[in-house]
Amino acid sequence: MCNQTVESPLMDKKEAPLKIAIVGFGNFGQFIAQGLKRQGHQVMATSRSDYTDYCKMNGFHFFRSMDAMCEEKPDIFLICSSILSTEKIVRTIPFHKLKPDTIFVDVLSVKQFPKNLFLEVLPPEFGIVCAHPMFGPESGKDGWAGLPFVYDRVRVFSDGPQALNCQRFLNIFENEGCRMVEMSCEEHDRHAAGSQFITHTIGRILSQLNLESTPINTKGYETLLKLTENTVSDSFDLYYGLFMYNVNATEQIDNLDRAFETVKQKLFGRLHDILRKQIVERVPLPVEVNAEHRRKKNSISAPSFLPNAEEMHIRDIASFAVPGEVIPNSKAQAQGIR
Amino acid sequence: MCNQTVESPLMDKKEAPLKIAIVGFGNFGQFIAQGLKRQGHQVMATSRSDYTDYCKMNGFHFFRSMDAMCEEKPDIFLICSSILSTEKIVRTIPFHKLKPDTIFVDVLSVKQFPKNLFLEVLPPEFGIVCAHPMFGPESGKDGWAGLPFVYDRVRVFSDGPQALNCQRFLNIFENEGCRMVEMSCEEHDRHAAGSQFITHTIGRILSQLNLESTPINTKGYETLLKLTENTVSDSFDLYYGLFMYNVNATEQIDNLDRAFETVKQKLFGRLHDILRKQIVERVPLPVEVNAEHRRKKNSISAPSFLPNAEEMHIRDIASFAVPGEVIPNSKAQAQGIR
Repeated sequence: MCNQTVESPLMDKKEAPLKIAIVGFGNFGQFIAQGLKRQGHQVMATSRSDYTDYCKMNGFHFFRSMDAMCEEKPDIFLICSSILSTEKIVRTIPFHKLKPDTIFVDVLSVKQFPKNLFLEVLPPEFGIVCAHPMFGPESGKDGWAGLPFVYDRVRVFSDGPQALNCQRFLNIFENEGCRMVEMSCEEHDRHAAGSQFITHTIGRILSQLNLESTPINTKGYETLLKLTENTVSDSFDLYYGLFMYNVNATEQIDNLDRAFETVKQKLFGRLHDILRKQIVERVPLPVEVNAEHRRKKNSISAPSFLPNAEEMHIRDIASFAVPGEVIPNSKAQAQGIR
Repeated sequence: MCNQTVESPLMDKKEAPLKIAIVGFGNFGQFIAQGLKRQGHQVMATSRSDYTDYCKMNGFHFFRSMDAMCEEKPDIFLICSSILSTEKIVRTIPFHKLKPDTIFVDVLSVKQFPKNLFLEVLPPEFGIVCAHPMFGPESGKDGWAGLPFVYDRVRVFSDGPQALNCQRFLNIFENEGCRMVEMSCEEHDRHAAGSQFITHTIGRILSQLNLESTPINTKGYETLLKLTENTVSDSFDLYYGLFMYNVNATEQIDNLDRAFETVKQKLFGRLHDILRKQIVERVPLPVEVNAEHRRKKNSISAPSFLPNAEEMHIRDIASFAVPGEVIPNSKAQAQGIR
């Protein structure tokens, strides 16, 4: 049924195209399929939704049932489902219909979870490659050159066709210009928790703030607005998956929590130092006065101009700095900082 | 003493250069002074540190005392000190030595504070312009074109030379190509708390995390690394000033706090939903098992592959998802999200 293959100039004429089956054919599955096709391979797919028309138009073959697709005996079985649904899907695959040298590949944003799932569930003769193309329809829309493709050859037998098929599969991404990064699943998840998960978390926090563009955006603020926009374009399910299925994520939430606490303590701690100086060392506190009111009275007192207590949510004193007071550790002027 | 002015092609030949006195001559004061000189004006400076040599080399005149500088009768008195030291410095200026139409300008990153300080402390005939050039030696090193210059003509008398001198001063930034943004000090501080202060806070939090570059940086993560680097290059005093002297900053810290709590609640709340489903609805919990161990025993149980309880810092159950369980609201696959 799936023999209508497009000949690609990039493919070795002596080799038949790889037969690649994809389960989960949403945006990301379709995006990856386009690259497989560009490299001259034969793509078949199945998914919860019906993509028959899309597949006809794009030279793929869509199967309404997992069983029918498995009967085509693919060389590569590519899991493109969401993190949250992967386990359920993998457990429904009729492995006995596949040929024994099939290579399973996943493209999830976490890696230890699919590795352990595959090792547990797949027949022992099946090959396993855990991969994370660190790009998508947006960042990869103008080609994949220079974009990182992380992979771990978890289980690839050197006798038989597995090693060759695995290399041919990896060559697809290599030929597209990806930066190939071979890395263990454990190392990937450690790095990803400290980078990708933190980035998503900051984006999620900022999106809660409903940040708006102002007439006075700084460049740094513009990058935060852009980050927020990109984060929210992903589903919360993806973010939840990064948290739930990466053993390092909870630690990173804790780290972020502590970092925020430290910053707040530094800010409020210094405020407290100034207050204590006034209270304990009996530096005279100016009576609560309002600058506007004072000016009208033509007072000659020398008050300070810090935000008043009510505005600062602090009720026990009127202002914090006293004229002539030396603020500890203030090296700002020497550094030319405003 | 300060008559050696460089003729600029940009200046109207009929007009004498403005005499601009700068107090606080660190990096930022020097940076601004270069622009004033490019536009053909005469720059004098005083500062806590001695910049005599720097000034000689750059065509500025350095005064070791505030009094001596004031005796030169500048048209514009520019405050380039840090937020924390501004009040103290302004209170030491011998106003009686200045001419009565002097215009005071500040360039702090907060605006209500200097506005109220100037209105309170300066003689009533002095002009007041509160300004915030939203760039510095780094972002403005290749010129100021397109960079925002925010200003508020707080008090400029139309009779006498003040209005003209004020316009000539603003023209300096206009001629340099700045995007001129006229805005009240109150509006500036409201916008800046929601943008600049939030950006600095995120940068400060991230800097506490000691983020490192990984072999698998995403583009979003790269922008966070860059933001962190830029934030830490500013002093903590600047950040503290943005917090302490902007009445809207505390509210933004509160907002950020709530946003982080909301994100955590969403993550842990969903986790709790799954647990509750297992506990209350008596969905059977697999006994704590380790995938590696299980495989060795050749068990045929169908456990799940979520991170184990100890790794997740949750001790009461072994795993969270049960095979075949439908996770509520999971639209991930339909959206093609991994």
